[in-house]
Amino acid sequence: MVRDLEIQNNQQIGLEMYRLISDLYPICRSITGDGVRKTLHIVQQQIPLETYEVPTGTQVFDWTVPKEWNVRDAYVKNRQGEKVIDFQVSNLHLLNYSIPIHKQMSLSELKEHLFTIPDHPEWIPYRTSYYKENWGFCLSHNILEKLEDGEYEVYIDSSLEDGHLTYGEYYLPGETEEEVLFSCHICHPSLCNDNLSGISLATFLAKNLSLQQRRYSYRFLFIPGTIGSITWLALNEDKTHRIKHGLVVSGVGDAGKMTYKKSRQGDAEIDRAVIHVLKHAGEDFAIEEFSPYGYDERQYCSPGFNLPVGRLGRTPFGKYPEYHTSADNLSFVKPEYLANSFKKYLEVVDVLENNKIYINTNPKCEPQLGKRGLYGSLGGEQDKKMSEMAVLWVLNLSDGTRTLLDIANSSDLDFTVIKDAASVLLKGKLLKSILEPINI
Amino acid sequence: MVRDLEIQNNQQIGLEMYRLISDLYPICRSITGDGVRKTLHIVQQQIPLETYEVPTGTQVFDWTVPKEWNVRDAYVKNRQGEKVIDFQVSNLHLLNYSIPIHKQMSLSELKEHLFTIPDHPEWIPYRTSYYKENWGFCLSHNILEKLEDGEYEVYIDSSLEDGHLTYGEYYLPGETEEEVLFSCHICHPSLCNDNLSGISLATFLAKNLSLQQRRYSYRFLFIPGTIGSITWLALNEDKTHRIKHGLVVSGVGDAGKMTYKKSRQGDAEIDRAVIHVLKHAGEDFAIEEFSPYGYDERQYCSPGFNLPVGRLGRTPFGKYPEYHTSADNLSFVKPEYLANSFKKYLEVVDVLENNKIYINTNPKCEPQLGKRGLYGSLGGEQDKKMSEMAVLWVLNLSDGTRTLLDIANSSDLDFTVIKDAASVLLKGKLLKSILEPINI
Amino acid sequence: MVRDLEIQNNQQIGLEMYRLISDLYPICRSITGDGVRKTLHIVQQQIPLETYEVPTGTQVFDWTVPKEWNVRDAYVKNRQGEKVIDFQVSNLHLLNYSIPIHKQMSLSELKEHLFTIPDHPEWIPYRTSYYKENWGFCLSHNILEKLEDGEYEVYIDSSLEDGHLTYGEYYLPGETEEEVLFSCHICHPSLCNDNLSGISLATFLAKNLSLQQRRYSYRFLFIPGTIGSITWLALNEDKTHRIKHGLVVSGVGDAGKMTYKKSRQGDAEIDRAVIHVLKHAGEDFAIEEFSPYGYDERQYCSPGFNLPVGRLGRTPFGKYPEYHTSADNLSFVKPEYLANSFKKYLEVVDVLENNKIYINTNPKCEPQLGKRGLYGSLGGEQDKKMSEMAVLWVLNLSDGTRTLLDIANSSDLDFTVIKDAASVLLKGKLLKSILEPINI
Repeated sequence: MVRDLEIQNNQQIGLEMYRLISDLYPICRSITGDGVRKTLHIVQQQIPLETYEVPTGTQVFDWTVPKEWNVRDAYVKNRQGEKVIDFQVSNLHLLNYSIPIHKQMSLSELKEHLFTIPDHPEWIPYRTSYYKENWGFCLSHNILEKLEDGEYEVYIDSSLEDGHLTYGEYYLPGETEEEVLFSCHICHPSLCNDNLSGISLATFLAKNLSLQQRRYSYRFLFIPGTIGSITWLALNEDKTHRIKHGLVVSGVGDAGKMTYKKSRQGDAEIDRAVIHVLKHAGEDFAIEEFSPYGYDERQYCSPGFNLPVGRLGRTPFGKYPEYHTSADNLSFVKPEYLANSFKKYLEVVDVLENNKIYINTNPKCEPQLGKRGLYGSLGGEQDKKMSEMAVLWVLNLSDGTRTLLDIANSSDLDFTVIKDAASVLLKGKLLKSILEPINI
Repeated sequence: MVRDLEIQNNQQIGLEMYRLISDLYPICRSITGDGVRKTLHIVQQQIPLETYEVPTGTQVFDWTVPKEWNVRDAYVKNRQGEKVIDFQVSNLHLLNYSIPIHKQMSLSELKEHLFTIPDHPEWIPYRTSYYKENWGFCLSHNILEKLEDGEYEVYIDSSLEDGHLTYGEYYLPGETEEEVLFSCHICHPSLCNDNLSGISLATFLAKNLSLQQRRYSYRFLFIPGTIGSITWLALNEDKTHRIKHGLVVSGVGDAGKMTYKKSRQGDAEIDRAVIHVLKHAGEDFAIEEFSPYGYDERQYCSPGFNLPVGRLGRTPFGKYPEYHTSADNLSFVKPEYLANSFKKYLEVVDVLENNKIYINTNPKCEPQLGKRGLYGSLGGEQDKKMSEMAVLWVLNLSDGTRTLLDIANSSDLDFTVIKDAASVLLKGKLLKSILEPINI
Repeated sequence: MVRDLEIQNNQQIGLEMYRLISDLYPICRSITGDGVRKTLHIVQQQIPLETYEVPTGTQVFDWTVPKEWNVRDAYVKNRQGEKVIDFQVSNLHLLNYSIPIHKQMSLSELKEHLFTIPDHPEWIPYRTSYYKENWGFCLSHNILEKLEDGEYEVYIDSSLEDGHLTYGEYYLPGETEEEVLFSCHICHPSLCNDNLSGISLATFLAKNLSLQQRRYSYRFLFIPGTIGSITWLALNEDKTHRIKHGLVVSGVGDAGKMTYKKSRQGDAEIDRAVIHVLKHAGEDFAIEEFSPYGYDERQYCSPGFNLPVGRLGRTPFGKYPEYHTSADNLSFVKPEYLANSFKKYLEVVDVLENNKIYINTNPKCEPQLGKRGLYGSLGGEQDKKMSEMAVLWVLNLSDGTRTLLDIANSSDLDFTVIKDAASVLLKGKLLKSILEPINI
């Protein structure tokens, strides 16, 4: 019954996550502009996040907040006045950050500004030119090949002007000021896995945690990639010392196995927590060493910050052909994969919240569990045996130098079993809690 | 010739160990009672161990010494007055620690107190109920199935009264007060491998070491499982700091490969010594990580003591079907396996006794071994090459930071070869002994 | 074109190395005597090494410089006056360090002084008797078997008298007094791989490095094996603290794969540098742990010195049947293998010279590489991607605790790619150099 309810809840959360993705899909996003504002507005219907506007030209470490980009319309018309490429059909058609243009030109001149994927002739690629002024159109290779010689009307009604970089932040206070960071990027237009899946998971995770008792405080960032994390770090440098654990949320909706990329520290508690959860999930998974290439973990893990922030998703970016194409659409992500990823994130949070240090109050020889009714007091026959082992492990290793996660890893038992054993022993006064590990 | 003598000695010791097991086999033992006293009395014919009597009710850490249990007779008679289950035939028939009873009852009532092993219908299981008052009989499943409906007379003439917990201890002083602990349990009735093999090996090891020069002091404990080690630790806590190495001796008579379970410390000298011996024995073996489940190493390795005590035996308990059944009998253990185990214990002792730290007195470049006659002065052609390598290794690594066992492991040479090389170099004044490692 | 030039240079250096070997091949060398002087004289035609003469009887640690050995002629004549063994045909025929003798004797008496290799009946073995006065002849087993019974005239016109031990040394000063040691042995007669290949490589490496700018100082030792390194260490003990890295050069001309034997330290910078070079060479190779048996690394790595000196060659001594026989001749070593070994040595030097520690001057978030033209500014498409990754790695890991070699190993990129990235970043002022690692 419990299991049925869990499956039902999983289905429910998967559907809700998918619905949010559907709502966000049509919007044309970029690293700045109204698309970002609309996106955050829709997320605000789920969680009361605050939005921030950082003016163009603000210096953020080695970078400068760029001009704001907005686009009203864009198309290419042939001699017959037919729109052969139309931004209204797919916002991917427009090179992101294209400057305005309205001009007649020959096909050969036009072609220098057209991008396709010959290997996947039906897909539209996603291309950007943030820091070098340019214009262009992306289209399927099939369409490109059908374009006839002759004059074309190119029309891009965009603006690239002083404005703001917009980002969203949601902070959930906990018992301590020490915090867990979840960061997702919000700068891609109609792409589902690479962008919207992360936004959706972060949103529903925040919603879920807002209803729970929290030891840690939680910070959710909805930011444009690279420039967004750099901006946030530059403006919030004084808060970064509070970040004890963090994850970059991205690519959590595809069919691939869960993949964790370690933080630069490599053996931080978040690294050990995520790896534990994946190892005990009974599903295939992959662990990647840190590398300085990727999403916003590049900034969180730059040497001047070196925050314990890893990246948890499914198939890594660039490792699936649909990546950065129109094929990363509403068919590519599925409620069941979203729900599966969501569950992993909740389990990681559970480890972090409960990964405490206890001391065995009866350290000389075993306590007599029988007289306390602690032998066989837990669960079914198979569970009972495991629970008894968990009780013995927690008692044996709770010497003040090990957290529950350390004990789970030493015993090769699931964290939840160890957590439950600790809970029972705590009630029986055979354990007491300490705040810092004992140095021996 | 030397080898022939060794084989003969091995056969001899195996037979002697087996004979002691045969003598102890018929006795009905438990964690208290006269069976333990009789057992220790027989061991005293080999070694002058002292026996201790700890009164019922004595508080030992979280535990209390239980009432003493003794049994004179026990049976179940059918309507015809035939004994269908008879303690005199096998002491395993009686649930260990059964309270007295004399009553007529129906088969169905009786059956709630009968234990069998359906998978091995000819074997009698071994069951206990130390800390929960109960009575019962164990029998082969075949007999159970033949029992006819009707009235049965149940008779158990046992006593469960204030008395004592009995254990034996044998202490062999050495050059230093630092000691090596060997501990075996003596609480099982007619079971050979799980109980008697350990008692026998500990007895003959003690006898052997009593005749040798000893650097370490040696302590042999013959104690009931769990409550015995807890009692000893509680009453001798002031002595535990002297225990530098220790082994729980159990299950040393079956046909399986040698198995070592590491101490909680995991890399104590005893761990490295045993693993070295097993690796160089040229036989299959297994190494197990520490876990808080098992024999008395659970108590020695509780976090408040954390003694460097491992467990060395053959097939681990619970991993052979005969475990805790009447099939763990005089056919299950064999002189040759007992002798093989005994030899391993002696080799481990040899490592511990000789694992010293030396310093090369001529550390700058190699000494000229030729002019000292140290090149090729040892053994046959193949041995000579190995001995020469051992000499070079000992000279090169004797910098005051490494013991001979460290050098044996670095060179992948057997400890005895390294020990002999050190001995030759010591005579040649190319080594000198130091007591403590140099910190570098 | 660059690659063609490199191949041409490789062929050139291989031929030059081979030519030097050919010139040195006929000379009868030993651990002392005129053969060593002639050898060093020929090397002096390439590099201005200094020669040292250490008198017989000089005490060097536990050893004494032996008498000087020289030989003018040696033969065995049969009854017919025919020279059946003739030193003039091959200097291997004479047991090295044979005392003078002129005597008639029977074949059976003679046979006690004859050495052959029955398994390779056409090869002459190489034998010595440095520290035990003896005489003898080495010959092919085929010849031995053809010797007829009867009287033989044995004639050895050698001298074993007070004289000197001769060695050569070439010192190239660099920016610092810290030095890199290259040591080769010069005590074998007509043996090409085991002796001459190392002399030749050391000579041309010295010649090459003399023309380059050097951060380190370089010391090249041309010494008789064992007694030579002991002598040098005894007379130059005050200089040994300057040796930061070192390699024993030997067996660098055969067809086998490159083999590196680690220093006693095991993880010294020289160990990591050589292993990196071999791993990234795209050829098969082998790594051996340190052992106290081998060439002069035995002395450099004795515990009183424990210098970071490894051994880099091709097939290890004793692992090829031609070792210490007349088959280790001018056909056994080849210019291409010599050139290949030479290249590896140069690459190791390149790592040592450039393995510095830098600090990222912009450690908080990534610097904006695009505005500095550092993105895609390097090489072809594939190289560009690797160079960009190298730039990111160097920036991310240059926190003052890691050298460039550490970064190359963490990123699994070739040292040269990392070095080039660091060079570009240094020019762009995104890195600055520090002398010592930061302790964190």
